[in-house]
Amino acid sequence: MSFSTAIRVYWEDTDAGGIVFYANYLKFFERARTEWLRSLGVQQSALRESTGGMFVVSDTAVRYHRPARLDDLLTVNASLQEAGRACLTIAQQAWLRPAQAGGEPVLLSEGTIRIGWVEASTLRPARIPADILEALKKTP
Amino acid sequence: MSFSTAIRVYWEDTDAGGIVFYANYLKFFERARTEWLRSLGVQQSALRESTGGMFVVSDTAVRYHRPARLDDLLTVNASLQEAGRACLTIAQQAWLRPAQAGGEPVLLSEGTIRIGWVEASTLRPARIPADILEALKKTP
Amino acid sequence: MSFSTAIRVYWEDTDAGGIVFYANYLKFFERARTEWLRSLGVQQSALRESTGGMFVVSDTAVRYHRPARLDDLLTVNASLQEAGRACLTIAQQAWLRPAQAGGEPVLLSEGTIRIGWVEASTLRPARIPADILEALKKTP
Amino acid sequence: MSFSTAIRVYWEDTDAGGIVFYANYLKFFERARTEWLRSLGVQQSALRESTGGMFVVSDTAVRYHRPARLDDLLTVNASLQEAGRACLTIAQQAWLRPAQAGGEPVLLSEGTIRIGWVEASTLRPARIPADILEALKKTP
Repeated sequence: MSFSTAIRVYWEDTDAGGIVFYANYLKFFERARTEWLRSLGVQQSALRESTGGMFVVSDTAVRYHRPARLDDLLTVNASLQEAGRACLTIAQQAWLRPAQAGGEPVLLSEGTIRIGWVEASTLRPARIPADILEALKKTP
Repeated sequence: MSFSTAIRVYWEDTDAGGIVFYANYLKFFERARTEWLRSLGVQQSALRESTGGMFVVSDTAVRYHRPARLDDLLTVNASLQEAGRACLTIAQQAWLRPAQAGGEPVLLSEGTIRIGWVEASTLRPARIPADILEALKKTP
Repeated sequence: MSFSTAIRVYWEDTDAGGIVFYANYLKFFERARTEWLRSLGVQQSALRESTGGMFVVSDTAVRYHRPARLDDLLTVNASLQEAGRACLTIAQQAWLRPAQAGGEPVLLSEGTIRIGWVEASTLRPARIPADILEALKKTP
Repeated sequence: MSFSTAIRVYWEDTDAGGIVFYANYLKFFERARTEWLRSLGVQQSALRESTGGMFVVSDTAVRYHRPARLDDLLTVNASLQEAGRACLTIAQQAWLRPAQAGGEPVLLSEGTIRIGWVEASTLRPARIPADILEALKKTP
């Protein structure tokens, strides 16, 4: 009941602790949200040109359970937790895919990301375009 | 009653929205924590060599109030909110410094970062070295 | 006659100029090299465990022709330009995929990346494992 | 005979090799160029508003001699190598500061960065504002 996308861990994602730098999960989560929107026919750059608006993140809460490492393949999920007229709350998780068939995925991190809609030129809050809101609500 | 450090916003920190990419506040917060430790005589790389341990972030919660932009000068704070034997909770804020004398700083973002201590080789939780804990508790 | 992989531009890749931050092409190029190695059965993390060695970049030269933007889909290439016992020179390009069928790809940036092999613990130069060198030479 | 600025290495700058990720030297070099401009009274965000133009990087060539690590303190230099009407070539180096008094700095990486001036809205090449060009030429 959620959108998911595959994300590979590269050198750029790691730090000297030998694991993925925790701030980068916010990037992974955003890639998943972007692909989710794209799967619904919504391209943020086109949206900005047509509506003059864009999404901005207003709140992030992330728990880190286990580390990911170079070359790991993750499944990153996104699902709608709450939808208002001007903001959305998205629940997200990053899972480590099992290296072998029959293995169990391992939860690496999870969080909620709150997103508002603003006019791009002023950054003032505005209503999320109705068709996007509808599309998001309909997705699994 | 908190440590603070100055952070300048560069091109690398911004995104196509014309503002600082929200994930980068986690980097700013970490730089402030690192400088705080350094101000107490604690250098994490040396610590790892001497103790075999390191800090890892286990939880982050950040609220984004206002955007920062290219060339902005921020004051980033860190203060100890809670200290256990194996983990710490640090409260942090990023403020925009007033461009002119007499101006008021503006709160850009704030959050809490929970940090655990682990053995670097196994990533297993361990007790924070007592002298570091003491030093942190004593700082304003 | 070269390996290629698809890379999507996300918010994290852009800067306040509205375009992909130039340093990030080095990340894109590295992802392509990593996928190239993976396509040859070489996983760098496994390699490091089995050989104690790793690749390090010693030289990068990149020309930026045209900018990429949010949501753009790139094709990033990698091909072997020169191979010695201890280092490789890889030629790479990033192309913008045409938005419509029948369109022409546009060259965004191109460069050469020189890579050496080192012992991971000492960072001293060493010979590239022979099987990797052979595999790279055989690929288109 | 060149501008220089201090840059500290944080967790965010490192990778799983235990050293600074090579692409990040482009960020360090840019911070130094930005501080150089600022030392001449030039703030790029203000410049963009007043002239409608901005600098873009068109060429980078970097050699990596030695690695930097977490907590290292670098001195990053910038000096004008060549100045035309529409573009500049800047020579840059990153040096490791000696840990102890009397020690010698160690050259970590060096490169040349070519920068053009463009209209921000169209990204078309344009002439560098004369006063900036003069200021840069006069600096050591």
